[in-house]
Amino acid sequence: MTAPRIDINCDMGESFGAWDKGDDAEMLKIVSSANVACGFHAGDPDTMAKTFVLARDRNVAVGAHPGFADLMGFGRRRIPYSATEIERLVAYQIGAAQAMAQYVGHPITHVKAHGALGNLAQEDSEVARAVCNAIKAVDPALICLAIALGEQQRIAEEMGLTVVSEIFADRAYGDDGVLVSRSLQGAVIHDPEEAARRVGEMVREGAIITLSGKRIPTAIDSICVHGDTPEAIPIAASVRAGLEKQGYAIANFIH
Amino acid sequence: MTAPRIDINCDMGESFGAWDKGDDAEMLKIVSSANVACGFHAGDPDTMAKTFVLARDRNVAVGAHPGFADLMGFGRRRIPYSATEIERLVAYQIGAAQAMAQYVGHPITHVKAHGALGNLAQEDSEVARAVCNAIKAVDPALICLAIALGEQQRIAEEMGLTVVSEIFADRAYGDDGVLVSRSLQGAVIHDPEEAARRVGEMVREGAIITLSGKRIPTAIDSICVHGDTPEAIPIAASVRAGLEKQGYAIANFIH
Amino acid sequence: MTAPRIDINCDMGESFGAWDKGDDAEMLKIVSSANVACGFHAGDPDTMAKTFVLARDRNVAVGAHPGFADLMGFGRRRIPYSATEIERLVAYQIGAAQAMAQYVGHPITHVKAHGALGNLAQEDSEVARAVCNAIKAVDPALICLAIALGEQQRIAEEMGLTVVSEIFADRAYGDDGVLVSRSLQGAVIHDPEEAARRVGEMVREGAIITLSGKRIPTAIDSICVHGDTPEAIPIAASVRAGLEKQGYAIANFIH
Amino acid sequence: MTAPRIDINCDMGESFGAWDKGDDAEMLKIVSSANVACGFHAGDPDTMAKTFVLARDRNVAVGAHPGFADLMGFGRRRIPYSATEIERLVAYQIGAAQAMAQYVGHPITHVKAHGALGNLAQEDSEVARAVCNAIKAVDPALICLAIALGEQQRIAEEMGLTVVSEIFADRAYGDDGVLVSRSLQGAVIHDPEEAARRVGEMVREGAIITLSGKRIPTAIDSICVHGDTPEAIPIAASVRAGLEKQGYAIANFIH
Repeated sequence: MTAPRIDINCDMGESFGAWDKGDDAEMLKIVSSANVACGFHAGDPDTMAKTFVLARDRNVAVGAHPGFADLMGFGRRRIPYSATEIERLVAYQIGAAQAMAQYVGHPITHVKAHGALGNLAQEDSEVARAVCNAIKAVDPALICLAIALGEQQRIAEEMGLTVVSEIFADRAYGDDGVLVSRSLQGAVIHDPEEAARRVGEMVREGAIITLSGKRIPTAIDSICVHGDTPEAIPIAASVRAGLEKQGYAIANFIH
Repeated sequence: MTAPRIDINCDMGESFGAWDKGDDAEMLKIVSSANVACGFHAGDPDTMAKTFVLARDRNVAVGAHPGFADLMGFGRRRIPYSATEIERLVAYQIGAAQAMAQYVGHPITHVKAHGALGNLAQEDSEVARAVCNAIKAVDPALICLAIALGEQQRIAEEMGLTVVSEIFADRAYGDDGVLVSRSLQGAVIHDPEEAARRVGEMVREGAIITLSGKRIPTAIDSICVHGDTPEAIPIAASVRAGLEKQGYAIANFIH
Repeated sequence: MTAPRIDINCDMGESFGAWDKGDDAEMLKIVSSANVACGFHAGDPDTMAKTFVLARDRNVAVGAHPGFADLMGFGRRRIPYSATEIERLVAYQIGAAQAMAQYVGHPITHVKAHGALGNLAQEDSEVARAVCNAIKAVDPALICLAIALGEQQRIAEEMGLTVVSEIFADRAYGDDGVLVSRSLQGAVIHDPEEAARRVGEMVREGAIITLSGKRIPTAIDSICVHGDTPEAIPIAASVRAGLEKQGYAIANFIH
Repeated sequence: MTAPRIDINCDMGESFGAWDKGDDAEMLKIVSSANVACGFHAGDPDTMAKTFVLARDRNVAVGAHPGFADLMGFGRRRIPYSATEIERLVAYQIGAAQAMAQYVGHPITHVKAHGALGNLAQEDSEVARAVCNAIKAVDPALICLAIALGEQQRIAEEMGLTVVSEIFADRAYGDDGVLVSRSLQGAVIHDPEEAARRVGEMVREGAIITLSGKRIPTAIDSICVHGDTPEAIPIAASVRAGLEKQGYAIANFIH
């Protein structure tokens, strides 16, 4: 009998020019999928090539991580793009990521929307559809990595894309299944043990467990860990160790 | 007996955001290939999508037209990139163009380097090799559109890429086969009749004809017309009419 | 007895790199004040220098025209900046304009917010205060050119800045004193005669006249004409001629 | 009898958006002058405001640190600008720095060219003159901080600007008075003791001491320490301590 499998994903390649961000080399020892910034909110052709090489050498699956064209705001600001503009922004960035990954011989497997784009795609069906339209038009074989219970997951399924759903290792959920605002107490989990315990419980129960203890059943295919916080590496390592102890094999969705 | 064929190519999609440049719709009635800016020296995802649609609807072949990351300088400044940086700049832009063209259902057929990048690739074998490496790594089936007699033509052939060579309709050549500097008298041809006459003569003779009258034999697969000068449309129309009168069918390289 | 005076202002210097926009040289023959883009939504150091020289040579007053850091969107998108970020964006751009104007020997006299920033400053007191804070901190002697009846006018007065109010020559007003959305019929005036007639009437009555015929009394110190529409020059010329026929001398606020 | 004075300067404010660079707060405890990036090669309005506040609160003199418009290359690439373009790039950035410094109530005292611009201004009299023209046009009271023995020092003096000359704490000099290329052995000093010893010796002798031991007499008004190397803080602290032990008071040029 083979072990059940689960993926751990992390955003990467978020350096830009002379500015570094995150310890990608270390994180690549832990995760099974890397979402690589495509030069709009972070990253540049050099950084992308280097990140794809690092991931290739550790056999970590890679995906395009498109974001808003907002370098100054790191893609975290809700710029009022039209749905058509979003489709095109995303299509462009998927293509850039495909080429850079192909260039180093390690093709991308998935697409995950970044920051404000990802949050809007979770909440707003029009934005979700724009992202999915871009994936479908450019390469319908690409997997859509979406936030569990969000609009993008629903729309992607409806459109016939392969969808995998993720939960967050270090963030608390409200009873609506949406992340609790960072400004509220308890919204962000800083303790690696606590993060591992929560993730283990949600994966075991096949449900998001909210702050109040409510269970919302959902498929959980991947755990998202963050790469740019001080406790990033310990949390990711602890989550991985916890899942492995629970009998899971850490593996990307294409295996 | 079928007519001999020749291509006419023009740079397009050089608008950016709220700024327009060139009359692409009119030019697409004349040319058989369009080189589409990829968002680094000009263009943006919206402009690219619109340009690919226009070209698709007129059945004009499209190519990626990568340039230096120099919006302010329109890609015309010789920024001292390393060869590796150029490879990656070009690979990225090819991918972006592939995706945007795929998104509108009209895949790209070729790659032509823009401005300072194109000039350097003509003169410098290291830059030429970087451009060709990018094409080969991302998609070796893409045709390399290179300046006749330049380094890029030579290197691309050496590397086994499909190469087509272009001459310029509105520029004078020196005896070294290189364009005469714009600052010199007679360097730029403004008269549509004169442009058509010169092109016709060079195509007929299978040679570049220099200012001094010297003939330098070369394959001529495509005529490059410019899109951003006041006399752009009349020159392009005149060159096309002249070639047709000489018995040529205007057709892109893939037919 | 001297003639009463009124100003006509227009946004200028909105070219960028290789892209031109607007016929500034022609417009400078008509207007008395020019609002010069500062490199964030349009313009660049070269364009600014050239625009200040043109204005200097025609003795047209110049102002800083700061906008959001949104070249792609021409400063027309409502990017969710914090008030502090807006203060600093505006302060920076005022300084850049001061230096470029000083560099050509024709110092700036005023500040006018561009596009989405201007609209937000009209509607939202917090944004208005941010713009005024920047003016006050950098140079409290600069005149604040604000949309008549808006929040920025009110806040600037409250803060003790010198304020002048403008109405628009080519846009219809609703009964709330705010411009009617461009998407509605009759929102934009394209006929030069009609624009001149409306402006003349509003200036004579010292009131904004709305689509329904309602009068809202307000100081009117300046008429804003647009520079980037096809009928820009004829409308501006017609408005000027109309005001002169009504006995007004066209002059900037500092005379 | 008062102690002789000498300045220590460091580049600062080199973060951008979400990306941090350098430990400015720590470095400001050591240096007497801070050269603040102006948003072209690094920095942004927010970063500038924060850096000027930090410097103000520690009573450290601030200057504009203009660079090429090359965020991706951190201003280190020799982009072929014309002299006129450089004048305007520099004028713009001086104005932006003046405004942001004024905004926090701590006006700038000097201008120092960054990276490739600084190196070109040292070597090339045309570039040096462009930088000095910008300073003179925008505010001739600003001090020109120039590399000792370079063209900018000479031209600035010739033009009547106040000039102060700097030597580098962590770089070796060749017999031509120019920094030895970083690629050569011994070009960069990593040991804080060694850096302090060298600086002390050059200041005492009033001469640049080259790798071969040659003395080239020059005024030395300021010591430049770098902020973005791993040993930045220890070297700066050691240089300061060494100068103080030698009887110098560390003070900016305006005291």
